[in-house]
Amino acid sequence: MRTTTGTALLTDRYELTMLQAALASGAAHRRAVFEVFARRLPGGRRYGVVAGTGRFLDALEDFRFEEQDIEFLCSSGIVDEPTGEFLAGYRFSGNVYGYREGEAFFPGSPIMVVEGTFAEAVLLETIALSILNHDCAIAAAASRMAQAAGDRPLIEMGSRRTHEYAAVAAARAAHLCGFASTSNLMAGHLYGVPTAGTAAHAFTLLHDSEEDAFRAQLDSLGLGTTLLVDTYDVAKAVRTAVELAGPDLGAVRIDSGDLAVVAVEVRRLLDELGASRTRIVVTSDLDEFAIAALAAAPVDAYGVGTALSTGSGHPTASLVYKLVAREDHTGRLQPVAKASVGKPSVGGRKWAYRRTAGGTATAEVVTREPMETPVETEDRPLLAELVRDGKVVGREPLAAARDRHRATLAELPLEACSLSPGDPAVPTIFK
Amino acid sequence: MRTTTGTALLTDRYELTMLQAALASGAAHRRAVFEVFARRLPGGRRYGVVAGTGRFLDALEDFRFEEQDIEFLCSSGIVDEPTGEFLAGYRFSGNVYGYREGEAFFPGSPIMVVEGTFAEAVLLETIALSILNHDCAIAAAASRMAQAAGDRPLIEMGSRRTHEYAAVAAARAAHLCGFASTSNLMAGHLYGVPTAGTAAHAFTLLHDSEEDAFRAQLDSLGLGTTLLVDTYDVAKAVRTAVELAGPDLGAVRIDSGDLAVVAVEVRRLLDELGASRTRIVVTSDLDEFAIAALAAAPVDAYGVGTALSTGSGHPTASLVYKLVAREDHTGRLQPVAKASVGKPSVGGRKWAYRRTAGGTATAEVVTREPMETPVETEDRPLLAELVRDGKVVGREPLAAARDRHRATLAELPLEACSLSPGDPAVPTIFK
Repeated sequence: MRTTTGTALLTDRYELTMLQAALASGAAHRRAVFEVFARRLPGGRRYGVVAGTGRFLDALEDFRFEEQDIEFLCSSGIVDEPTGEFLAGYRFSGNVYGYREGEAFFPGSPIMVVEGTFAEAVLLETIALSILNHDCAIAAAASRMAQAAGDRPLIEMGSRRTHEYAAVAAARAAHLCGFASTSNLMAGHLYGVPTAGTAAHAFTLLHDSEEDAFRAQLDSLGLGTTLLVDTYDVAKAVRTAVELAGPDLGAVRIDSGDLAVVAVEVRRLLDELGASRTRIVVTSDLDEFAIAALAAAPVDAYGVGTALSTGSGHPTASLVYKLVAREDHTGRLQPVAKASVGKPSVGGRKWAYRRTAGGTATAEVVTREPMETPVETEDRPLLAELVRDGKVVGREPLAAARDRHRATLAELPLEACSLSPGDPAVPTIFK
Repeated sequence: MRTTTGTALLTDRYELTMLQAALASGAAHRRAVFEVFARRLPGGRRYGVVAGTGRFLDALEDFRFEEQDIEFLCSSGIVDEPTGEFLAGYRFSGNVYGYREGEAFFPGSPIMVVEGTFAEAVLLETIALSILNHDCAIAAAASRMAQAAGDRPLIEMGSRRTHEYAAVAAARAAHLCGFASTSNLMAGHLYGVPTAGTAAHAFTLLHDSEEDAFRAQLDSLGLGTTLLVDTYDVAKAVRTAVELAGPDLGAVRIDSGDLAVVAVEVRRLLDELGASRTRIVVTSDLDEFAIAALAAAPVDAYGVGTALSTGSGHPTASLVYKLVAREDHTGRLQPVAKASVGKPSVGGRKWAYRRTAGGTATAEVVTREPMETPVETEDRPLLAELVRDGKVVGREPLAAARDRHRATLAELPLEACSLSPGDPAVPTIFK
């Protein structure tokens, strides 16, 4: 992709016009607090999953207006010269708090809080929302799929169905939520996500016979590889596969037909042929519902494509970035909230806690003051310090986020596992 | 984003494992033809729109495996050393033909044809599909929205709801299909898409009163600006706006409530106040259906967010990349096709023509041989040369694609404008 090196132009124009007008009026320098939250969870899902925070911290460090960016903005009349000068020197110098990646969230959860001057905080709306809306949408879908799959491993393979860089972020979010591996090599390289993949139908079609293709694959990739058996006739392919590889064949992949039925037939045939340890991988438009429906089928692993990388029907997480408090003319921080029909917001800087009882979450508690010594000791604080005075302090390895996600899910009430639409798994209490 | 400079790792692992096995078996050097097509149009849409070809050509030029990529691939055991050596020297040296951007397509249309050795062509599956699936999905939604909007301008403002780089591509695809402008500054900078945007609710909330906010905006951005009037009370805001700006106020924006009703009230009020030239911009979860429903309302422009950048319910275009022909052991090019249940493909290199009668399209004609001198002179060839011997020869300005899209739509039968699900606007005839 041809792009500038920084991320600062991944921004909506209105942030810069607001900046310009506020610089002129003097209000730009008021202290301000912006909050990222969702008014609802898409599709009646029971919980949201925080993902993308780590990518946001990376993007924030690269968020500076290069000379060519300023030149573009000024010469095309998007901003005036004083604003261009401000942008040239811009580095975010405020604080960011946020829910950790992998944590669950609910309607009204303040999953990110950005404090700074209005000028510096208003500019982060688009980059924060783009990253969080995308990654949280993928994470929510991935988490449901992982719950549906139980102990069977999931392979993320949706790169071909989504934007080339969204694919990389999707692989990261899926791994965070329990996917074992991804087809996406860039995600392997950038984020250390384990990669997987062996062959497509093209490989079989390339050779003069299926047998030639299987032999070539086994010779090069070893007996542990996965042979794709549905290019022509599945039963015939399975026989050929076991003839060539013997009982140590790693796996066969089925990518079409009624997977539940075909898996039973293939399992029976493999067992008959003595390949009882050979695993069955299924792929073909799987989503969390199809995965759940295959729970009783003799399937050993699922490959998920389109539904993962498009958020299984909900490609965005409905997160918004709203001004909730700002300094007034006397210098005091005042809560603010708009009154637009159907789009209310709750003013004021927030703190958030997961209330648990006997190890099970019972509520999301959102307060306007921090609980200094939580009265209820089982109220776990959810906002962590991510950026202090402009410096990123909250980075963590993806593995930590994976562990957190597992622990968070274990803590949610049983209803959280339900794939059917309904109320959030716990209520949000504003105090 | 932290990334390598090239695009070669935006690739699924199975392409490299197929390459390795085919290099070992010798089949890698067979000439091969891959084709990009859709088996169906998502959601019963009447036509697809080609978009992303230009971005694919950019990505192809950057598609090379850097030293650090090879190091990653070899050290993590994804490929063996001979394959790593092949990748180090890899540059695509084949030919690419494709439908031009802005052109309509239908089920089975061969919108891109990649010719080369198997080794060099198989590696392009993911990058081609990621770009085309995303951009075509956005383009299809954008085109329907533009048809629904008629002469009223559309502003693309969906960046905050999708991946940060997908947002840039979405803005480009939307402009290609008739959107007047985008909020996305990177799309303005990289692709010359006109940008738009003035203020969000945060700007009003920042100031001690709505009046202060409007005055600050008018002072800085001029009377032609668009004032957002639904932060508190719409009627009061409109009065304040006209009091401050006078009859030359550019526009007001409504972002909540029943837009059809509120627009009528706001129009009446503006007219009463003498601001009869002040325009009304509406935003708030618009899609093609909501836009069509507002046709009779006094609305002057639409801002579209989520629905645009997520493909209005269909975030991917269902395009696949299939091997359709390859050399056999005698050196002859043979058509190939898999027989998987429900996922058939038609073998053989294809040519495609739009058949028209009296200026109206009547069929998509897909042939296995080129029509040397088209018998029917109204059969317009659809495949253009994009890459010759590895060199990009088919670049064109975005404006040309915009013009083509307009002309193509004008040529489709009237049913193409229907927003309701149904059959493709013209049938695809395989000859």
